[in-house]
Amino acid sequence: MRTSIATVCLSGSLTEKLTAASRAGFDGVEIFENDLLASPLTPEEIRTRCADLGLSIDLYQPMRDTEAVPADEFARNLRRARHKFDLMRRLGADTVLVCSSVSPLALDDDDLAAEQLSRLAALAQEFGIRVAYEALAWGRHISTYDHAWHVVESAGHPALGTCLDSFHILSRGSNPKGIEDIPGEKIFFLQLADAPLLAMDVLQWSRHYRCFPGQGGFDIAGLLRHVLRTGYDGPLSLEVFNDVFRQAEAAPTAVDAHRSLLVLQEAAGITQLPPPDFPSGIAFAELATPDAQPVTQVLDALGFTRTARHRSKPVDLWQQGEARILVNTGTAARRESTALAAIGLESPDPPAAARRAEALLAPVLPRRRTPQDIPLDAVAAPDGTELFFCATSRPELPDWQTDFIPVDDHPAAATAAAATDLAGIGRIDHLALTQPWHHFDEATLFHRGVLGLRPQESVDVADPYGLLRSRAVSTADGAVRIVLTVGAAPTDGDAPAQHIALATDDVIAAARRFSAAGGRLLKIPANYYDDLAARFDLTDDELEIYQELGILYDRDAGGAFRHCYTRTVGRVFFELLQRDAGYQGYGAQNAPVRLAAQHTA
Amino acid sequence: MRTSIATVCLSGSLTEKLTAASRAGFDGVEIFENDLLASPLTPEEIRTRCADLGLSIDLYQPMRDTEAVPADEFARNLRRARHKFDLMRRLGADTVLVCSSVSPLALDDDDLAAEQLSRLAALAQEFGIRVAYEALAWGRHISTYDHAWHVVESAGHPALGTCLDSFHILSRGSNPKGIEDIPGEKIFFLQLADAPLLAMDVLQWSRHYRCFPGQGGFDIAGLLRHVLRTGYDGPLSLEVFNDVFRQAEAAPTAVDAHRSLLVLQEAAGITQLPPPDFPSGIAFAELATPDAQPVTQVLDALGFTRTARHRSKPVDLWQQGEARILVNTGTAARRESTALAAIGLESPDPPAAARRAEALLAPVLPRRRTPQDIPLDAVAAPDGTELFFCATSRPELPDWQTDFIPVDDHPAAATAAAATDLAGIGRIDHLALTQPWHHFDEATLFHRGVLGLRPQESVDVADPYGLLRSRAVSTADGAVRIVLTVGAAPTDGDAPAQHIALATDDVIAAARRFSAAGGRLLKIPANYYDDLAARFDLTDDELEIYQELGILYDRDAGGAFRHCYTRTVGRVFFELLQRDAGYQGYGAQNAPVRLAAQHTA
Repeated sequence: MRTSIATVCLSGSLTEKLTAASRAGFDGVEIFENDLLASPLTPEEIRTRCADLGLSIDLYQPMRDTEAVPADEFARNLRRARHKFDLMRRLGADTVLVCSSVSPLALDDDDLAAEQLSRLAALAQEFGIRVAYEALAWGRHISTYDHAWHVVESAGHPALGTCLDSFHILSRGSNPKGIEDIPGEKIFFLQLADAPLLAMDVLQWSRHYRCFPGQGGFDIAGLLRHVLRTGYDGPLSLEVFNDVFRQAEAAPTAVDAHRSLLVLQEAAGITQLPPPDFPSGIAFAELATPDAQPVTQVLDALGFTRTARHRSKPVDLWQQGEARILVNTGTAARRESTALAAIGLESPDPPAAARRAEALLAPVLPRRRTPQDIPLDAVAAPDGTELFFCATSRPELPDWQTDFIPVDDHPAAATAAAATDLAGIGRIDHLALTQPWHHFDEATLFHRGVLGLRPQESVDVADPYGLLRSRAVSTADGAVRIVLTVGAAPTDGDAPAQHIALATDDVIAAARRFSAAGGRLLKIPANYYDDLAARFDLTDDELEIYQELGILYDRDAGGAFRHCYTRTVGRVFFELLQRDAGYQGYGAQNAPVRLAAQHTA
Repeated sequence: MRTSIATVCLSGSLTEKLTAASRAGFDGVEIFENDLLASPLTPEEIRTRCADLGLSIDLYQPMRDTEAVPADEFARNLRRARHKFDLMRRLGADTVLVCSSVSPLALDDDDLAAEQLSRLAALAQEFGIRVAYEALAWGRHISTYDHAWHVVESAGHPALGTCLDSFHILSRGSNPKGIEDIPGEKIFFLQLADAPLLAMDVLQWSRHYRCFPGQGGFDIAGLLRHVLRTGYDGPLSLEVFNDVFRQAEAAPTAVDAHRSLLVLQEAAGITQLPPPDFPSGIAFAELATPDAQPVTQVLDALGFTRTARHRSKPVDLWQQGEARILVNTGTAARRESTALAAIGLESPDPPAAARRAEALLAPVLPRRRTPQDIPLDAVAAPDGTELFFCATSRPELPDWQTDFIPVDDHPAAATAAAATDLAGIGRIDHLALTQPWHHFDEATLFHRGVLGLRPQESVDVADPYGLLRSRAVSTADGAVRIVLTVGAAPTDGDAPAQHIALATDDVIAAARRFSAAGGRLLKIPANYYDDLAARFDLTDDELEIYQELGILYDRDAGGAFRHCYTRTVGRVFFELLQRDAGYQGYGAQNAPVRLAAQHTA
């Protein structure tokens, strides 16, 4: 179906908005009146600009406080409408949105509303314009979609139809099933917006917290299915008022917006995308660093061994059990300090995974390789992290490890292999990635839509210097877990730290081995252990060991979680953890203590 | 009364919080458990640190999910409590806060709650500790203060009392009059927090949006009066969970917090401060600039005349009617570009105004003057703007103008005087000051408390690159108006612009004169005038003139408002405005168009 976006969704000047919408692949736009008023372009110039960008103008909006008012007031409203219809003719827009009145002058009189809307539609018709009447959730007398449709139906004017808006319908708790009673040709427009499920005043909720479909808690796909059963064939159009998107760069927001409509259409069964290729594990995590020494010193102490190096690039593979970490000194020019630059996702069918990502507007990365290298399918996540879809030791598929030449002759390898048994790090449990402030919702949708990961509840975490928000996405079996975190402030001097969490069956042994090898664990205050003693039935011996090593403890219905942290190198630190099979979380309860300790470390 | 603050109100490590609280003048603190757990200091060290800082530890908090539970669970809770009481003994804290349970295990059984609280209190008593039981607004079975008091009363244990929290009481809409039925000696603690009046889930409201008394919409002074009638003589303690304060620097937040308690005590009639000295006008606005030429060129075109210069400092006085603008090139070293650095407030009694400001913790500025200069009373506002309390041409008081030597010989003076008649700028209508993001609530309370200005409703203004928030404070007669604005993001590369709004009786003449003198007015898009034509009954001639000059138009029940803008110089621009006597606003409706035009200018 055709896709459209209201200019109010995007940041910037009208022309910046139009350009971003066009580049992201939208077919049309809704022109939000305030954006037109603030533009130095004439309506004719805007029309031309849209045409040049391949955008139709699907809606002009909004016209407010029009209907069900005393005659003299309605005369003024018609006068105002005539101006706007004239403007729309110049603009080349043929549908106007009329919102149900919130004016104190409005009368609770459906017949009057129908009569005046009919007269408005008659005037519109003279200009070749259609009127799409929509119930605002906070409309004074008309606030539900079925009520608005009832008024439109009784007005019975061919140039008058209804506009459905998913936010106004679902925020009121209306049953969208009734949409099917409306003839499709009388649905003149469909606006789509999701929102987090907040218990708050609906006007404030609508004006500040809307988000793109799939980013909130509403069943937009379900609503869309009802609309489609009516035969509606107009555009799917996004109308999202969101304080964060207003500040964010227009280009990525427009891509995020368009991706949301693709995922939505797939969910509603009206489009087919390459199916998700659920990753079965983390093949590797790649650190980029201007200086390998500090981070490899930590890896070494953790029991990792440098097992191979890339045949053509300055990249080393460090391994322990199934945990593989690449240390790349080649991209250092782009990095100020050590950072998590890429993730290798173990993919059942790497090219298929890449096709889905590309179909969902993920930037496909150029394959930086020499001719003999294995082709690697890679895209960029919204935070810039490179995602490689790859296969490890699966004979039927090209193996990314083929490009790495074993470092057999390295004397440390044998020693380290022995140490590995001791340390027992088996795999990467999860990766924690700090997200750019303006694109947290986008990141969740990306990981869900592109990678098929399931988002968990968002949790607040109190850092001493501000509240962080954290949301885990994972596969059903927990084989891939990524924790997305967003900082307290939109812009920040220091880029916040990311981390690699390493799973072990014996965190005490792993922590001891790390310390014995010269590694420095994050020190946790004694007061924390005093609180553990009060909250859990742990033995004094256990507590003493935990305190000595800085091991934090949590428990849920499914089991226990024990974890400790290395000091930070550049932007990266490591977590050692021991997870009972049934434990679902990430130790969020302990994060404030960990964060405070990192600030004082 | 003694003042106290919960450590959770302030940003940073526990020791940073304690230091800020002490420096701001608090007598004591509530230690929030998470702050203690995250601190590397032992309880004994924290006790010593508090003592060194002159702070008592008035409360340890919170103990959760304690009462009205099955026996085995309560046994675990008592075990946990014993740990905490032992900790409190080491800490030297003698009162613990117990919040009403939110646990799914809690039973709806007041007798059981009373019995278990009584047993908890008996244990506490062994440690010399009192238990203050508080109803959370979202408590599972006990959620109102009178219910909590009923349980405490029926428990009848001397070491058990109640804790009152203004947020929990007022957010539920409880009538605080009933507080007077509680004996003062059974109110073991009083926590104070205000909040904006939001229609939202009370838990989210409480956790993210609390603010200091006087910054929100609750009648905290009224509640306090009820509490005082019981004979309560414990501390007034602030407990505020606020996402913004969590990020802000602790020191200014603590000052803001303490100021709020001073203003509150004055309002409740339990302390006397030097009374407000309501300013009767704006004596001058002072611009600091590294280069006077660009801004004086604008002033000149606006019809201002350089009438005098300071006897000892590089400061010129530019005047037109009662509008006086100082141009100071002496402080340029501190300024990157032209900025509004100081405001002269016409004060009935300048030393009295300064005494009140000082009593309300405004930093008193050193008097940078030579011995013969008039003493000027000055303080710093939260955004760093210097506020001078002064007298202009009032024979009974020292006149700040005495330090300025007239520039009689300046040939432009006569010409400019003639021009003044033409331009007709009479006075400064208002000053618009962009506030530091983390201190917007503080700024409102400062202007209300220190200067006696009345805050109007906060309004959202859509800038193309983010939503701004704007709040005017003014004297009852509108003689002094200051518009406080806060940007979309906490930190910003460019410091946003401020402006000086100049009142004229004929904005068309003033704008024409400015243009004729070579001034450049901000160009407003034609689309805006098309919309004006649709919305208002203005003649084509009027509209044409407005469009030619870039004059914006607004109207409310009291009259019309016409205004236009100069281009920005450094961080400052000027507004020319014509305000009908009854018009109350500032043209906020037009601000998005103006902001968009400034971005493209």
